[in-house]
Amino acid sequence: MTTIKTFQIRKPIIESKDVLPAVLTIAGSDSSGGAGIEADLKTFSAHGVYGLTCITALTAQNTQKVQLFEATPKELVKSILDLNFQDFLYGYDQPPLKAIKTGMLTPESIGVLQDYLPELEKYGVKIILDPVMISTSGSSLLTEAAMKLCIQTLIKNAFLITPNFQEAQAILSIATDSHSNVPIASTNDLINFVKSLQKALGCKNVLVKGGHIPWDKKNDAPYEMSAGNDYSNVVVLDVLYEAEINEITIYESAYINTQDSHGTGCTLASSIAANIAKGLDLSAAIPLSVDYIHRGMLSMGKKLGHGNGPLNHTTVPETSVSKVITLQEDGVKQAVIDSAPSFYEYLKNHPRIKDNWKLYSEHRFIKHLANNTLPFDRFLYFLKQDYYYLINYAQVHALAASVAPTYKQTHSEALVISNIVEEIEKHKQKLCDKYDIDYEKDRGLDIELNPGPACINYCNYLLKMGRNENYFAIKMALAPCLHGYYEAGVYGSECRSKWEGSLGKLETKHESDTYQSWLDDYTSDWFFKAHQDGQKALEELFEITPLSQQRLDELVDIFNEVTLLEVRFWDEVLDY
Amino acid sequence: MTTIKTFQIRKPIIESKDVLPAVLTIAGSDSSGGAGIEADLKTFSAHGVYGLTCITALTAQNTQKVQLFEATPKELVKSILDLNFQDFLYGYDQPPLKAIKTGMLTPESIGVLQDYLPELEKYGVKIILDPVMISTSGSSLLTEAAMKLCIQTLIKNAFLITPNFQEAQAILSIATDSHSNVPIASTNDLINFVKSLQKALGCKNVLVKGGHIPWDKKNDAPYEMSAGNDYSNVVVLDVLYEAEINEITIYESAYINTQDSHGTGCTLASSIAANIAKGLDLSAAIPLSVDYIHRGMLSMGKKLGHGNGPLNHTTVPETSVSKVITLQEDGVKQAVIDSAPSFYEYLKNHPRIKDNWKLYSEHRFIKHLANNTLPFDRFLYFLKQDYYYLINYAQVHALAASVAPTYKQTHSEALVISNIVEEIEKHKQKLCDKYDIDYEKDRGLDIELNPGPACINYCNYLLKMGRNENYFAIKMALAPCLHGYYEAGVYGSECRSKWEGSLGKLETKHESDTYQSWLDDYTSDWFFKAHQDGQKALEELFEITPLSQQRLDELVDIFNEVTLLEVRFWDEVLDY
Repeated sequence: MTTIKTFQIRKPIIESKDVLPAVLTIAGSDSSGGAGIEADLKTFSAHGVYGLTCITALTAQNTQKVQLFEATPKELVKSILDLNFQDFLYGYDQPPLKAIKTGMLTPESIGVLQDYLPELEKYGVKIILDPVMISTSGSSLLTEAAMKLCIQTLIKNAFLITPNFQEAQAILSIATDSHSNVPIASTNDLINFVKSLQKALGCKNVLVKGGHIPWDKKNDAPYEMSAGNDYSNVVVLDVLYEAEINEITIYESAYINTQDSHGTGCTLASSIAANIAKGLDLSAAIPLSVDYIHRGMLSMGKKLGHGNGPLNHTTVPETSVSKVITLQEDGVKQAVIDSAPSFYEYLKNHPRIKDNWKLYSEHRFIKHLANNTLPFDRFLYFLKQDYYYLINYAQVHALAASVAPTYKQTHSEALVISNIVEEIEKHKQKLCDKYDIDYEKDRGLDIELNPGPACINYCNYLLKMGRNENYFAIKMALAPCLHGYYEAGVYGSECRSKWEGSLGKLETKHESDTYQSWLDDYTSDWFFKAHQDGQKALEELFEITPLSQQRLDELVDIFNEVTLLEVRFWDEVLDY
Repeated sequence: MTTIKTFQIRKPIIESKDVLPAVLTIAGSDSSGGAGIEADLKTFSAHGVYGLTCITALTAQNTQKVQLFEATPKELVKSILDLNFQDFLYGYDQPPLKAIKTGMLTPESIGVLQDYLPELEKYGVKIILDPVMISTSGSSLLTEAAMKLCIQTLIKNAFLITPNFQEAQAILSIATDSHSNVPIASTNDLINFVKSLQKALGCKNVLVKGGHIPWDKKNDAPYEMSAGNDYSNVVVLDVLYEAEINEITIYESAYINTQDSHGTGCTLASSIAANIAKGLDLSAAIPLSVDYIHRGMLSMGKKLGHGNGPLNHTTVPETSVSKVITLQEDGVKQAVIDSAPSFYEYLKNHPRIKDNWKLYSEHRFIKHLANNTLPFDRFLYFLKQDYYYLINYAQVHALAASVAPTYKQTHSEALVISNIVEEIEKHKQKLCDKYDIDYEKDRGLDIELNPGPACINYCNYLLKMGRNENYFAIKMALAPCLHGYYEAGVYGSECRSKWEGSLGKLETKHESDTYQSWLDDYTSDWFFKAHQDGQKALEELFEITPLSQQRLDELVDIFNEVTLLEVRFWDEVLDY
């Protein structure tokens, strides 16, 4: 007798529909999965971008050797590119295909791809070219003649090329027809080398990877391997030259002493391509990508393969530069201090934020409420939305508590949650029992509360920050609600005083009293203290946190985005 | 003048080194990235398994058509498989290669692979075979003759085959040389069809996917498309037959009405293969994989491609069956209720847990402490470890707060955090000032506290649960600490009373008093109340949560694992 069981699979609730940018990798296949299009696809997925492929050659290889190699016929390469461009580049307002990453190229694929260069330029597709010449296991993958062709066509038109130090030397030799390597004895030599490479090639940006030339930090010179195995002062320097702005950026990172580096080159380039496709600046993309490689190498629990093992591509990449970079840039914080009496004042008066902040803290909703011209059913709708919001707001404070650097901060977030719960209860008891809003239903029955899109978007944004960001950034996302409600309360109260005598007529006195009491709540001593404590906490975080310009911009963006979400929250109440 | 900037990239702190199981996909390449090895690799990565490839054919295709097709030569297929098996199967105690997923096969690849079947059998590699015959865009991908060969060789030896309904009909026709399709009018017909398919093929397990035969739940019959577009009663039934245990499992899920299903077949099979490689049972793997496909379809914000669009492979798969399945199995909860007075009693007396619980709650550490034979420096070491632990423990309560189903539960977690902070402060003030332990340093200086491996493992396990599990399971992970310390306190106090008069000699009376006061803390009214409240909360969660046997087992496993982590925590203190 057969046993029969039935299960019902729940339909998932998808929080936000992200648009996936697409990246095309043009490279060989590494059947052992650590390099080639395999590594690229794994990397794209880890970064949340959609991967397309054009396989230039099949190889039979593993972590020890490359055994067979079969180049893809020219007409197949052409057909693949045609179909991919037809489907992911042409016929869109905003084409999903943002970047192309190239790895191992063949003369066939170089020939086909060069014909598309004008089209790619026209559509703004950025080419990140990793000039693969030799595999980690030692096989030669591209002839000098093919590299010469590549230099004359693709490299010249590339957005970025990412040679390691050896490849950079070889390419410079080929490009300049010189047969001696440039000697490197100091950081200064390295900088000049990278600049001369860019000049010889004509591509927009060059990143020379330093993994093959470990650096002795103490003596500012290449590390002498004969000096023994003391790696305490050894670092890796990756050097970026951005020709258009004539800027060198040196990324100093840990030297990880391992033989298991199969595919690290491919992976770095595809991680950069993914970050570029997501809209990051090159200078922000690179440290995140270096960090991704580090994570991949360090999290490879048990070595895979019997040769140069691959890395773990499945680690979750960091999305914030500040989590990856420790050094603060000189002057960034001083500029903030010089321009405003506090970090909070700096934020709300920031050129990008100022107008939005005014839109929020002096919102039409507040004016109507102050003037008794807000229809009461709109106010009740707002309270429902706010109830839903506060539950999420409490949860995001819990997420902040879970990543707070000190247990005292964890504790203070827990205390804030208690305050929010008090606020939720206040909504329930004071205002709503009379108006037949069923607040007994908890989150399991969200649908009853029927939160609008602006409310849902706002909550989802906060939850996303809470799950992915560090403590400072989460606090930044939580700040506009706290401070804006205080300021809106003050603004509303002023309006109401000014307009006293000519206020609009609501149906009952109770309704008018309710508006007054709402304004009173947010100008109360209790809320003023919360507003002040919040400012103090932000100020302390600003003081102790190293900041680069990039990170400061990220924080400003978060504050601005949440300010706009607040504006839309009230817009929706009025325009529903 | 070139601007020069330097940044230091932080070395990431990797919490746990996971071992990656490997899965090999033997399939064609889909250059547009939605199906084939591209979809497989994306899926493997999303599931945290390492992907290997053997590309059976290159295709030029997109979401609209397959334009060119070039089969990989037989010797290349053979070389790829050889190298992959050499590197990922042979020469290990526990080979990383756990499963092979096959997609589009060619006569060449079928021929090569069949020679390896005895080897794969020997090493326990499971074959998940997706019998691809026709692409979503309508191209025929395998001839009837090749399918016949496949049936006689690979399918017979497969762990699982995953045809959709049309493919299942075609395969049954080919296998039985019959030319009429089996008529399906009821669930019963469907069950008999799946059983007869398995019988005809001889493979271990068969999953017939129901996406192509939407089901009218009300009438228990295939949905008549002519009946209009009312999908309210329409579901998809995926039917699994496990021949060895003679068990049919029907997974009922939402019918998602979309044309954008390019690659869903490949993706389901590779998701199942990944879940199997991670050690899941087939019956647990399937709902998680169906859910992954749903998430992939529903989270595709903006359609990609101009034809049948692909899904979003980058969504994070659920790891817990209970989050995916809603129906509770009859009798599962009743069996718990019948066997124990409370869920807590059920857990600690569970056959898998009972001995471990005794090892924990009557640990040698407690006996030594009760008997004054615990060296005081060991106790101080324990306090340091416990301090580090409590900070993490508070954070995991914060994570519980962030996913609690009701705001009241969020609040109660916040109150627990306050209690834990009190406990941390107690450690600092009462006990340790005298003994020169620097507790002023917060988490930024963990290294000073020097937590041991057992402590770190325990904390990391809790954080992992906190970040990935639902509220019930997180509470389950937090429970052994709370309840075990109460029971250990009671046990220790009893021992101390019994042994009074013959207690060991510590250096000072203060040390003995400290031990007494430690035991008093955990038998105090305050802690007894926490112990009781915790039991009550567990009981309530047990009452309201639907449970299948699978999920109950998961919860028991969590409780058991944490009990063992507690044992190791104290072991380390003694044996350090």
